[in-house]
Amino acid sequence: MLADKNEQRTSIEELGEFGLIKHLTKDFELNHKSTLKGIGDDAAVLDFKSKKTVVSTDLLVEGVHFDLSYMPLKHLGYKSVVVNLSDIYAMNANATQITVSLAVSNRFPLEALEEFYAGVAAACKVYGIDLIGGDTTSSTKGMLISITAIGEVDEEKLVYRSGAKENDLLVVTGDIGGAYLGLQILEREKEVFKVNPQNQPDLEPYSYLIERQLKPEARKDIVDLLEKLEVQPTAMIDISDGLSSEILHLCEQSKVGCNLYEEKIPLDPTVISASEEFKMDSTMIALSGGEDYELLFTIAQADFDKIKGNPNLTVIGHMTQQSEGAHLVARNNTKIPITAQGWNSFNAS
Amino acid sequence: MLADKNEQRTSIEELGEFGLIKHLTKDFELNHKSTLKGIGDDAAVLDFKSKKTVVSTDLLVEGVHFDLSYMPLKHLGYKSVVVNLSDIYAMNANATQITVSLAVSNRFPLEALEEFYAGVAAACKVYGIDLIGGDTTSSTKGMLISITAIGEVDEEKLVYRSGAKENDLLVVTGDIGGAYLGLQILEREKEVFKVNPQNQPDLEPYSYLIERQLKPEARKDIVDLLEKLEVQPTAMIDISDGLSSEILHLCEQSKVGCNLYEEKIPLDPTVISASEEFKMDSTMIALSGGEDYELLFTIAQADFDKIKGNPNLTVIGHMTQQSEGAHLVARNNTKIPITAQGWNSFNAS
Repeated sequence: MLADKNEQRTSIEELGEFGLIKHLTKDFELNHKSTLKGIGDDAAVLDFKSKKTVVSTDLLVEGVHFDLSYMPLKHLGYKSVVVNLSDIYAMNANATQITVSLAVSNRFPLEALEEFYAGVAAACKVYGIDLIGGDTTSSTKGMLISITAIGEVDEEKLVYRSGAKENDLLVVTGDIGGAYLGLQILEREKEVFKVNPQNQPDLEPYSYLIERQLKPEARKDIVDLLEKLEVQPTAMIDISDGLSSEILHLCEQSKVGCNLYEEKIPLDPTVISASEEFKMDSTMIALSGGEDYELLFTIAQADFDKIKGNPNLTVIGHMTQQSEGAHLVARNNTKIPITAQGWNSFNAS
Repeated sequence: MLADKNEQRTSIEELGEFGLIKHLTKDFELNHKSTLKGIGDDAAVLDFKSKKTVVSTDLLVEGVHFDLSYMPLKHLGYKSVVVNLSDIYAMNANATQITVSLAVSNRFPLEALEEFYAGVAAACKVYGIDLIGGDTTSSTKGMLISITAIGEVDEEKLVYRSGAKENDLLVVTGDIGGAYLGLQILEREKEVFKVNPQNQPDLEPYSYLIERQLKPEARKDIVDLLEKLEVQPTAMIDISDGLSSEILHLCEQSKVGCNLYEEKIPLDPTVISASEEFKMDSTMIALSGGEDYELLFTIAQADFDKIKGNPNLTVIGHMTQQSEGAHLVARNNTKIPITAQGWNSFNAS
């Protein structure tokens, strides 16, 4: 599980700042029509014509957001891009470009950064994104990644967090809770490894959960699917901090309440079994786990027939009057107020 | 000189991640017509209509790019924005929006971050920029700032680094070398302070140099001036790493050579006197110092009459055939090859 130490170690000091960024980005191609100029000038130049531009940015810190003892650098590069693209798709937009900035201490050899950029390149390829800029610099400690993602969208297709209406249906994509449990498993194996480095864990039963944590995907396919189904969500957000936190964002910004039905929350069977193993409640994990990067959106009831039966989409609740508040309707039919239990990097650190 | 410790200390953990960014950005107004949606959704939404979009990003690390022992946080906020805007102006574009992300360790109280954002707000006001996004998170050590600046420009006004032609004139704005000497003075006073904290230095004679280091300005006025003068530069870059390094970028990307005349380099009288005090060659400082954030551009000879006599603009050389290389023509008329001596954060650390 733990990444091999690289055999070859080229000091990044040897290349210098300009040489480094040139070296790391030399194989990236520009494919988008909207990219007029990528890396290599004072700024990149883009042309979105009549479309609107969407911009989102994220900062990821070693020891806070990721742990290199079980996160291979290539996966980290991939995931760093994906979590930013997820924000663009959550606007119902098409992600088109990213900038990637990296601060690393001198303990990272060039080969480590190449691994990271190989992951960035893989994500760019899978999602059809142009890398158009970035900065690579030294840090006094550890690794820090800053990514800005850019996308384009026709104005009439834009979806904010604020458009949900009373009686709208609440829909989630895929299944949730897996990424959090993947993290628990990796943390547990790290502790085992510390005690007995010879231990060879069998992680096969947990492969889905670990993949959800180490190599999440953003739901570009859902943006395409919604267009095909001719469904325009009334509000949308991506699930980065956990279902409860995201529901509260939708409710607050749309000025509505919500009933979320516990029995409807889509869970993978391995989420249920691992929850039992960790003696945790699977609903709590779904509500508070985070990092699933699924999309959560609301649609008018009239659109229900268009999404009915689609294996990617699950109706998990409906919006109510704001005065009713946001509640989880439990399996035993009791109503429990939803509180934000999302992940907070300031408490976590 | 050294910033007072804040009297009031509110732990940033108390607010949590969402509360923190909301608190820090609540007084920012959106003024640009191109900003449809700022902070508060998964992504900001912009509308540049028929104009092109320019994007630039920078990462600033405590202990590498700035030293909080003499850099007040408000100045740091201001400078962080300004250095990014400078890249947008270097495209001959109009800067319109920024995102500001911050990673800070728990040693920073809320009041410190408020100071930083007060500087960001001041820069946004002076330059007419909307703050449209960002991320605030904890770091395991120190402070790290990531800024992405966005601008708009009509396609025919865009200026790349690559358009300089043989015989074009090389023009620099303002004067250079001051920011580097300001840094030397601050570093010297820091050492004095370590030995004798009671010492009250008289920094008045150095106020211009210190201001160039602590509160640089980006040359938005030059973009406006060039439009007024009806001068379209053939190539342009901003001076962040030192004149020699920037000249080499223009030469390389435009495939030309350059003669730079030592006697023409604009130096402030305090740059000359402080250079003597530090027993450094003022030309070397201008060539290698960096952080002046002046603009360096080339124009066709036919445009010379339009800029002649303008106190903001100095012709310091001309472009030659690429095969002739890039040279400094010294006061004694000897030709010295220009080499990149720009600031490198990997060597500096």
